[in-house]
Amino acid sequence: MGAYLDHASVSPLRPEVAAALHEVLAVAQADPGRPYSEALVVRSLIEDARDEVAGLASVTSRQVVFTSSIAESINTAMASLAQGGQVLVTGTERSSVAEAAARYGAVRELRVDGAGHLDLEHLADLLRQHPGSLVCCQVANHETGVVTDVDGVMTAARAQGARVHIDASMALGHVELDLGTLDADAVTIASELVGGPVGVAGLLVKKGRVLPPLLVGGSQERARRAGLENLLGIVGFGVAAAVLRSPEVRQREADAARAQIAELEKIVLAVDGTAAVGAGSTERRAPHLRCFTIEGIEAEPVLLGLDRRGVSIHSGSACSSESLEPSPVLRAMGLEADRSLRLSVGHSTTDDDVEAFRRSFEPVISDLRSLST
Amino acid sequence: MGAYLDHASVSPLRPEVAAALHEVLAVAQADPGRPYSEALVVRSLIEDARDEVAGLASVTSRQVVFTSSIAESINTAMASLAQGGQVLVTGTERSSVAEAAARYGAVRELRVDGAGHLDLEHLADLLRQHPGSLVCCQVANHETGVVTDVDGVMTAARAQGARVHIDASMALGHVELDLGTLDADAVTIASELVGGPVGVAGLLVKKGRVLPPLLVGGSQERARRAGLENLLGIVGFGVAAAVLRSPEVRQREADAARAQIAELEKIVLAVDGTAAVGAGSTERRAPHLRCFTIEGIEAEPVLLGLDRRGVSIHSGSACSSESLEPSPVLRAMGLEADRSLRLSVGHSTTDDDVEAFRRSFEPVISDLRSLST
Repeated sequence: MGAYLDHASVSPLRPEVAAALHEVLAVAQADPGRPYSEALVVRSLIEDARDEVAGLASVTSRQVVFTSSIAESINTAMASLAQGGQVLVTGTERSSVAEAAARYGAVRELRVDGAGHLDLEHLADLLRQHPGSLVCCQVANHETGVVTDVDGVMTAARAQGARVHIDASMALGHVELDLGTLDADAVTIASELVGGPVGVAGLLVKKGRVLPPLLVGGSQERARRAGLENLLGIVGFGVAAAVLRSPEVRQREADAARAQIAELEKIVLAVDGTAAVGAGSTERRAPHLRCFTIEGIEAEPVLLGLDRRGVSIHSGSACSSESLEPSPVLRAMGLEADRSLRLSVGHSTTDDDVEAFRRSFEPVISDLRSLST
Repeated sequence: MGAYLDHASVSPLRPEVAAALHEVLAVAQADPGRPYSEALVVRSLIEDARDEVAGLASVTSRQVVFTSSIAESINTAMASLAQGGQVLVTGTERSSVAEAAARYGAVRELRVDGAGHLDLEHLADLLRQHPGSLVCCQVANHETGVVTDVDGVMTAARAQGARVHIDASMALGHVELDLGTLDADAVTIASELVGGPVGVAGLLVKKGRVLPPLLVGGSQERARRAGLENLLGIVGFGVAAAVLRSPEVRQREADAARAQIAELEKIVLAVDGTAAVGAGSTERRAPHLRCFTIEGIEAEPVLLGLDRRGVSIHSGSACSSESLEPSPVLRAMGLEADRSLRLSVGHSTTDDDVEAFRRSFEPVISDLRSLST
């Protein structure tokens, strides 16, 4: 593996997760809804994982619904909460939010400024016009890392009896969060962004709220999602959450990420025609990712040039596989959209990875610029 | 692990699958839609798995959509194919078919006889009344193993321009099938019923048919399902399919299953007041499962009594986790529903498992009967 600087797409499995999954492969998989011993073992593994995920998110275990992906969590939340009404969505959110919202309601775009911050006055205005709306926002943006004032959003929404979906997938484990106190109607969280496996995610449901299932035909997840439970995925997510429940681990990883991102930022900004995207203050950004614009060259050849030198980074929308379309996030912020790069670090990132980027970035950009002149 | 005779709920992982997953845990997980090397490795693993699953089902790789469960496959098929019209569903199908069909259309129950066979004349009648319907049936029933004349269903449906969804999950790998030639609009297949992992399944889409995604917001699976690909699940499903692509393996497993089921049937029928459910001829049944009714006692204490002796079997609906409600399958066949047991075998079943059942079954029934008199 080369220098992998795309943890905000997918983090590699944490070693603790891989070790646990090696053990789970020796467990007899079974339907945890059955009454026999093999099923009880599986049920216990799943409920232990649920407790760990709930603990990391500061909610109760009963609030945690395991799904198969961020996209499924978001689609389920929209199907349940949009109720055919207005859905107020920031233009910087994952594409699945607006797409699912449009299926189950009518989308209105919430304004963000050039720093990526939600315009709370615009939100309040829209809520006065449409008091029973669904409001959608992110804790930390998936491309820029910019942190939204979710308390402000919750206050504005509650004042008008609006429902709220929060995408906390990029923030969980990276930004200090108490999702229980925040008390949104539904919160999407991810496994692969905390070093758990892909193929599993979470939807946290407000206490007392009945979540009608999007997938029907079985009473799994307390009748909130039909479908046999993904044993490997759920156990892996639980182990990743267990590691991150330690405040010391979170602090250590955030400090390391902040230092690595600061170093990567220096390397990028040392090249002419580059600029960092989003809020300047580190307090209002997730520590582990940073987005940049580059003048005069396309992002795709930069990615390919870096890949040839063993460095993996990201450009474009994080939700649209097999596409390199312009980023709607940066467009919503009023920025040049097809020339952005996102660097992100995580639990496995080393100083060597940062050095590999240092050796590669300027030469790749120079080569491309010399080709285009 | 005791004597596990519930392969028709979930089969344990095949040893080949577990071995492959141990190796995949060492692979850097990544978003296969990215352009860098880690992503290409993941994409290649997923596409290899798709080829194997397609090969086992006798369809092309492009027809295979990976989902997270049988329930998701069925919900996706119903959302796409019901189109607000009539959905003709056999009463013996998985509960997710009727539940999802009712969400996206209007359900009409297709008649089955006491042997579990679909009444093709009733189907033809309904199709004449509602020519643009969606018809749903199973290749092999999930509780009785009874095999439906799916060619007959396809012929009747085509004659009236109806669409067809086939649940082949209990048949794939156990009953000889050519789903490509059958050419239904959508076919649901399962991983955990062929010794692959839970948490992944397949939906096979007719060539040339555009399947609108149920989960939106990403262009994964050729824009037919949003959501990051479940690497472990998909690779495991592929390995299980690869094992079963060998006709010799399928023949050997079917022969062993038939012999074990015949032996288990003898043990059950030696007890007074028991009867086998469904078609008598083995040609019209999947080889690896058999359902029985028992007079005078409830199923749940039988299951618990057997579990205490290390034997795991099933009763009730296969789709409704954490419930022991009466089986709708047997009700649709006109049979006493709350007193049924299902025995099913698979790749890991040994003669010792059959012997453990022999030692346990009669004593458990005798104990329960002596308690109730």
